[in-house]
Amino acid sequence: MSAVAAGIEIDVLVSEVGPRDGLQSISPVMSTADKKAWIDALAAAGVREIEVGSFVPAKLLPQLADTDQIVAHARAIPGVVVAVLVPNLKGALRAVETGAHKITIPVSVSESHSLRNVRRSHAQMIDEVRAIASMIAEVPRASRPSFEVGLSTAFGCAIEGPVQERKVVELAEMAIRAGADEVGLSDTTGYGNPTQVRNLTRAVWSAIGRERLSGIHLHNTRGQGLANVVAALDVGLTTVDASLGGIGGCPFAPGASGNIVTEDLVFLLEAMGLRTGIDIMKLIEARGVLERALPGEALYGFVASAGLPLGFAPASERAAVGASEIV
Amino acid sequence: MSAVAAGIEIDVLVSEVGPRDGLQSISPVMSTADKKAWIDALAAAGVREIEVGSFVPAKLLPQLADTDQIVAHARAIPGVVVAVLVPNLKGALRAVETGAHKITIPVSVSESHSLRNVRRSHAQMIDEVRAIASMIAEVPRASRPSFEVGLSTAFGCAIEGPVQERKVVELAEMAIRAGADEVGLSDTTGYGNPTQVRNLTRAVWSAIGRERLSGIHLHNTRGQGLANVVAALDVGLTTVDASLGGIGGCPFAPGASGNIVTEDLVFLLEAMGLRTGIDIMKLIEARGVLERALPGEALYGFVASAGLPLGFAPASERAAVGASEIV
Repeated sequence: MSAVAAGIEIDVLVSEVGPRDGLQSISPVMSTADKKAWIDALAAAGVREIEVGSFVPAKLLPQLADTDQIVAHARAIPGVVVAVLVPNLKGALRAVETGAHKITIPVSVSESHSLRNVRRSHAQMIDEVRAIASMIAEVPRASRPSFEVGLSTAFGCAIEGPVQERKVVELAEMAIRAGADEVGLSDTTGYGNPTQVRNLTRAVWSAIGRERLSGIHLHNTRGQGLANVVAALDVGLTTVDASLGGIGGCPFAPGASGNIVTEDLVFLLEAMGLRTGIDIMKLIEARGVLERALPGEALYGFVASAGLPLGFAPASERAAVGASEIV
Repeated sequence: MSAVAAGIEIDVLVSEVGPRDGLQSISPVMSTADKKAWIDALAAAGVREIEVGSFVPAKLLPQLADTDQIVAHARAIPGVVVAVLVPNLKGALRAVETGAHKITIPVSVSESHSLRNVRRSHAQMIDEVRAIASMIAEVPRASRPSFEVGLSTAFGCAIEGPVQERKVVELAEMAIRAGADEVGLSDTTGYGNPTQVRNLTRAVWSAIGRERLSGIHLHNTRGQGLANVVAALDVGLTTVDASLGGIGGCPFAPGASGNIVTEDLVFLLEAMGLRTGIDIMKLIEARGVLERALPGEALYGFVASAGLPLGFAPASERAAVGASEIV
């Protein structure tokens, strides 16, 4: 369970989704300069993967209309993987043109949610995945982005209710067959529980292989976000999404809101002795950018207000700790 | 991992501490009638153990001055274990007189915290434990309460900083030698992390035996409460403290506040397929008593506002679920 990014070894990759997932549900458009400052602050804190925007039509989502500029800015920061969301082939083409390192297309395991969210069936979405994979295959290897299918509503749907594990596994297999490099599991509705996280991860792993699923996107809608992270770590997942200040969620899933708070997640991991490469205090400082740029918007999280424990040592400063101290 | 209470089998005992730990830090004195209504609502939801009060001098804690009446009321509810906190032998005598089923004396692993909180050294506290154990031993077996030492600041202290595992184990051994039936681990400051929960539980178990430590009291100060519960369940603990609406904490530990929210904990457990015997919707209704009786007091928790997932089935209704579904 270790990954090397920017030359420093880490145990868990915290993937920040705030600039896309967080902003997406906020109406007042943040200035391009503020977005750049936010990303700079995240990178300065040691964040190594940032979902910086989405290539959807500007008319549909004016908040993210400057994604091309943001990608260009983030690409210039050494050691940061620049991820973007795309709804279709057209968006993926723009992502490739701007040089994003990672492209994710969300595919909802609940077909009702897919139809309501993007007005497309599973078959249509998988066709889109295939078209994007073919397009990406033509990109010269040196600048070819990685391509992920994000399986949303994987833990339950606010329209359909429980989602069968079998259905998630089937879509994961279809996504990989259609040419995706990997899939991610997304608890869009905040329905997930630790037992489900363990079972679903194992089921998808045994269907498509461990290297094809490394990450999980959990929501804190019912306060279960970090509890689910513990289960994800137990089973061996090494990439976890989160959002600074916990902003964002899914505006199309009724009642669902609240990403995991990056600050609280990083505290959890570092306290457990798992290196993230992220400086918690700098992360908390980065909230200042959001407070100034999004006045009146609620920021969440406990660590930012409670502070670090007296005498707290992050994982990287505990090299002398015996292996028996870390489960 | 199963316990039988009130004739219905459960997997995890949720021990409600709101009427003592929650109220303790709230200034406006709640009426005895409201406290009774609160306890009745908890019991009606299926809560099987309730810490109903504390036998401290009324002058020091007017909020809990009616504990004798509350114990008498709670004892009349079939199937409810009535627990009380005591600071010393005098309090324990009153607890025995009123017929409490369970008596807990807090002993802080951090001596600085103990001196600041109750102005007593470890040696003085262990003397008190010995005196209480001797007194309880004289009570006729049929009405003899169980006697627990609650090891506070077991995961770290806001005055001393990190607390050595060795220190916790030593105090646990001293408490048992002094005559306590069992010890509990308390994360008074909200410093704990899942790795520490696992390690500390195992260390205490190997020192005093598994049957001497069954429960854990976690705080959500840094948002880690339920994440720590997952670790506690993994390792095999079967009793978890929580407080309706998350009220309470430790008024003497600077910066520490926020018990685990009972509603969110019960959701976690039931979603994982672990039976609590508690009806979540009735628990959420019970918040109404607090809203009326404690106007202006903040209530916490996510499940109460987000609601249950569509199609959610509690553990007891999932008897047909295969064993493979439950880790």
